[in-house]
Amino acid sequence: MIDSLWHLPRDIISDGYDAALLSLATQVPMTIHEYPTGTECLSWVIPEKWTCHEAYLETMDGRRLLSYAENPLHVVSYSLPFEGVVTREELLKHLHVHPRIPEAIPFIFKYYEKDWGLCASKVLRDSLTDDRYRVVIRTDFSYGTLKIGEVVIPGDTDETIVLCSHLCHPHQANDDLTGVIVGLKVAQELLSRKGLRYTYRYLILPETIGSIAYLHHNPHLVPKIKGGLFLEMLGLDYPHALQFSFQGNTELDLCFSLAMKNLDYHAWTGQFRTVIGNDERQFNGPGVRIPFLSLSRVLPPSSPLAPYPEYHSSFDNPDLVSTRHLEDSRQMVLTMIDTLEANRVPVNKFKGEPFCSRYGLHVDWYTNPEGHDSLFHILDRVDGSRSIGEIASACNLSFDAVKKVVDQLLAVGLAELKD
Amino acid sequence: MIDSLWHLPRDIISDGYDAALLSLATQVPMTIHEYPTGTECLSWVIPEKWTCHEAYLETMDGRRLLSYAENPLHVVSYSLPFEGVVTREELLKHLHVHPRIPEAIPFIFKYYEKDWGLCASKVLRDSLTDDRYRVVIRTDFSYGTLKIGEVVIPGDTDETIVLCSHLCHPHQANDDLTGVIVGLKVAQELLSRKGLRYTYRYLILPETIGSIAYLHHNPHLVPKIKGGLFLEMLGLDYPHALQFSFQGNTELDLCFSLAMKNLDYHAWTGQFRTVIGNDERQFNGPGVRIPFLSLSRVLPPSSPLAPYPEYHSSFDNPDLVSTRHLEDSRQMVLTMIDTLEANRVPVNKFKGEPFCSRYGLHVDWYTNPEGHDSLFHILDRVDGSRSIGEIASACNLSFDAVKKVVDQLLAVGLAELKD
Amino acid sequence: MIDSLWHLPRDIISDGYDAALLSLATQVPMTIHEYPTGTECLSWVIPEKWTCHEAYLETMDGRRLLSYAENPLHVVSYSLPFEGVVTREELLKHLHVHPRIPEAIPFIFKYYEKDWGLCASKVLRDSLTDDRYRVVIRTDFSYGTLKIGEVVIPGDTDETIVLCSHLCHPHQANDDLTGVIVGLKVAQELLSRKGLRYTYRYLILPETIGSIAYLHHNPHLVPKIKGGLFLEMLGLDYPHALQFSFQGNTELDLCFSLAMKNLDYHAWTGQFRTVIGNDERQFNGPGVRIPFLSLSRVLPPSSPLAPYPEYHSSFDNPDLVSTRHLEDSRQMVLTMIDTLEANRVPVNKFKGEPFCSRYGLHVDWYTNPEGHDSLFHILDRVDGSRSIGEIASACNLSFDAVKKVVDQLLAVGLAELKD
Repeated sequence: MIDSLWHLPRDIISDGYDAALLSLATQVPMTIHEYPTGTECLSWVIPEKWTCHEAYLETMDGRRLLSYAENPLHVVSYSLPFEGVVTREELLKHLHVHPRIPEAIPFIFKYYEKDWGLCASKVLRDSLTDDRYRVVIRTDFSYGTLKIGEVVIPGDTDETIVLCSHLCHPHQANDDLTGVIVGLKVAQELLSRKGLRYTYRYLILPETIGSIAYLHHNPHLVPKIKGGLFLEMLGLDYPHALQFSFQGNTELDLCFSLAMKNLDYHAWTGQFRTVIGNDERQFNGPGVRIPFLSLSRVLPPSSPLAPYPEYHSSFDNPDLVSTRHLEDSRQMVLTMIDTLEANRVPVNKFKGEPFCSRYGLHVDWYTNPEGHDSLFHILDRVDGSRSIGEIASACNLSFDAVKKVVDQLLAVGLAELKD
Repeated sequence: MIDSLWHLPRDIISDGYDAALLSLATQVPMTIHEYPTGTECLSWVIPEKWTCHEAYLETMDGRRLLSYAENPLHVVSYSLPFEGVVTREELLKHLHVHPRIPEAIPFIFKYYEKDWGLCASKVLRDSLTDDRYRVVIRTDFSYGTLKIGEVVIPGDTDETIVLCSHLCHPHQANDDLTGVIVGLKVAQELLSRKGLRYTYRYLILPETIGSIAYLHHNPHLVPKIKGGLFLEMLGLDYPHALQFSFQGNTELDLCFSLAMKNLDYHAWTGQFRTVIGNDERQFNGPGVRIPFLSLSRVLPPSSPLAPYPEYHSSFDNPDLVSTRHLEDSRQMVLTMIDTLEANRVPVNKFKGEPFCSRYGLHVDWYTNPEGHDSLFHILDRVDGSRSIGEIASACNLSFDAVKKVVDQLLAVGLAELKD
Repeated sequence: MIDSLWHLPRDIISDGYDAALLSLATQVPMTIHEYPTGTECLSWVIPEKWTCHEAYLETMDGRRLLSYAENPLHVVSYSLPFEGVVTREELLKHLHVHPRIPEAIPFIFKYYEKDWGLCASKVLRDSLTDDRYRVVIRTDFSYGTLKIGEVVIPGDTDETIVLCSHLCHPHQANDDLTGVIVGLKVAQELLSRKGLRYTYRYLILPETIGSIAYLHHNPHLVPKIKGGLFLEMLGLDYPHALQFSFQGNTELDLCFSLAMKNLDYHAWTGQFRTVIGNDERQFNGPGVRIPFLSLSRVLPPSSPLAPYPEYHSSFDNPDLVSTRHLEDSRQMVLTMIDTLEANRVPVNKFKGEPFCSRYGLHVDWYTNPEGHDSLFHILDRVDGSRSIGEIASACNLSFDAVKKVVDQLLAVGLAELKD
């Protein structure tokens, strides 16, 4: 699926984006919402559809140096049309290169600062020694519709968890198709489940303006959304990185980080806006304030190569993406969801310490002192005021270790779940 | 008193325990509560009375290697009866030794995992080279009553502080008779006092099941119990160790630690379940949640010899117990109680700073800068929102230093006590 | 002005004090409140007026060693009258010297411990070898009035900020005339302003008893006083020192420290009672609890010369005072006030992130990543729950940087101010 979609010129409102979304919609029951150009959404306006018919750079004697047909990244996304002969100096002002990889074409977008622009490898740019060049950029801006794919997985309540990926990075694989694929696989799995506590909504959209459009048109949903998770860059060969919500200490922050720590020893976490920025910015923002985390596999900000060397370039292709990593990330997201679903508040039906021997809970201190201590640290906190995740966090134990004890208590009638 | 009681086989429900409790009841007005075998208490059941009529281990040619008559620790407390010839291999599965001291007989109890068992020194066990041995354990399990001794010292209110020790460690001195003796001396002293703010209840009971039985039968008392202190292992030549309550920050935690720091420079404190575990576990537990501290003289958990080398062994005899330490600990508990009793909330009847010179409160900054500063740090906080202990803690001063200033303010009418 | 006032014997209730206050009252519209000797104020009593007619120390052969005429510091402020011949030993008990500077006469006051006393340089004292000396101290205690000068600068609300300096340190310049001068200049500037949110009251008073008298007579004002700032020792060549209020975390603590950090890189802050003690003690105290900070230029308490070498001595003269420092401190106080006045709570009228490009707010991440990040850290927190100062503090940005963004949001209608 990545192989068939990655190369499409999926600009935010474009035929390429629409084609990709329709293709994804064959995989899972999906509603596609359309919001027309010019619609006011929150403080934003839906932009025009952008089409690039043809574009190239030529020497004055007609040698073609680069073309849109060869790679859509050669044209700045949402570039103004332009045709003419320009001096080398003028050309270089409009010719973007990648900051790290001399051979890569960068991904550049100018959605709102209108200008014309081309992109090339630094190698190519450095070879430009002529005085003048011919530029042809045949783009047009037209009325269109921004499209959002939404998969709804109903649960026992309408308290909702949102999963989200964006699809608008043309001709790149890891950023952003891998997030879409993982999200889709997770949605497929959740659709097969029964008895989910929460309703899940998986959104595929163009970055930023897509989230804005969705939030603008669904104000009734906002109070029901408990939180969300943005997915992206999950094909890389790096550990998982979980970026916390703006609040940083919500139930989702707790459950997702407990789940992650258990599955990926090298995984790390970071505060909001310190790992990588995507649509979680709109959900976490003022007036919305939905706790929204993000999961990726980027390098930490301390790394000189962060988020990853091939970021926003023509080198971000399927070669970077490992199927095993996508499967691991799918499992990671499902475990995060399982943890959240299971994060109930156990209420003691015992007082003091329960008679462990009588109920088969006894762990002998002499043969297993750590197990014994953990058991009692957990039992101390089964008091109707703490969720399983909060107990795990307070005791520095895994979610599963606490859940196992709580399940034993439930089985023998020594506890019940709140609500 | 230790000399006359330590050697008794004081198993949790047993003739030895009853004899010891009756003997203690001659020292102080005590009510003895009895709870019969089979009574459901919280999630527990009162066990049967256990009697060991005779027990020994012999070689096949009739050489007696150990016997209950010689030392009751040779038989696992609540051992099943057993008579027969066993192989060396089978015997060793049932023959317990002390983990640290090769010459000591360990104290082993199996109240709820029913099995037969003997205890011996490692030296003896290592000398067993025959193929077979004869075992005789003549114990029986019968209907009996768990007994709790309770001394009530009424105060001006029925808000109650509980002191507690257990009495059920057979043939040992430091653990647990020293706690009983200190508690009894404290109770005797409190009985001679007038005008106590709180009511005190001193409980002598078998560990764990005794507390469970008491809590089960006194649900009306639980809301009146402000907190408590468990006492044990107070004859040792180590500094005092105060284990905080589950909450860790209650008025008792504050007052008892302030009192202790003042009296014993080397004393130390530890969180709940990190110093030593006893009946405070039941009081602190879910559904009860009475802040219950414990005072002992154990070694810190970082010590390889913790809680102390002779713990749970035949070496825990009166030689380990110093009368001076018991007297110091009695004084320590009384000072803790005095501190709690005196921990009132002073309310300022002055505004700004009081006119210290006028009221004889002046401390000259030039001759006593620290005294001057302490005075004003205290005065700043005499505002009706902080107890004396809280002021002491905020100013890093002793409880007595703050109380002295508060008493001066009261004397000249510059403050009054809340309520 | 310092030159004309510093040398006056401005004892707390005295002709010198009155003369200085009247002189200051010519500079600005000022109300002078008078509180007569013997008035009970809070827990205090207004003392008598003190006048020193003549005082000197002579050798038995009539050689005058020191005299009040020569320097009023030679007599302990509020010294009892005394005339007679005393032994050298007796004299030394009543003859005070400066602890650090051998050549300086100390400033000593005994307002409430009544005694007679003289002050001299250590050099002079060490030269006293005769057996007997003649002492003449002709002082009298009479009915008078404690005087407080008050400048009121009305604002849009009667929520009030108090500025305060004391004027009662005789024949010294830095402590306390510099605070008075800075306060007066600030009051003059504020009087020229329009549209102040808060009402300002600038108080000139004798230390401690002046504040007590003011608070006693203005109980109706206390609930309206949001906070205050004491000013003193501002002519020194050291960085500014801001002492926090008792609470330490009020809006004034926040705004004043943000303002200070921006203007004086070497400025430092300290908790209440750790920098220098003055009238803020009375305002912060129990029963009043007005958050009252102080601004000075003393050395930190870790310095062996703290608060400054010439403190409370005849060496504290106009040579120590730099006009430039006074002007800088005036600017500092005004900036603190501006910051407090501007510390409004912005409320977002956008949701998620605003469409920055549309509103001219865009900061390009590629060319200015720090500016971009700061912008969004600010925008995240414009949610009606945080003041500008709180946002600055949370983002580790200057108050001005945050205010600039908030002003931009206000200008384009993306935010409004609370209330």
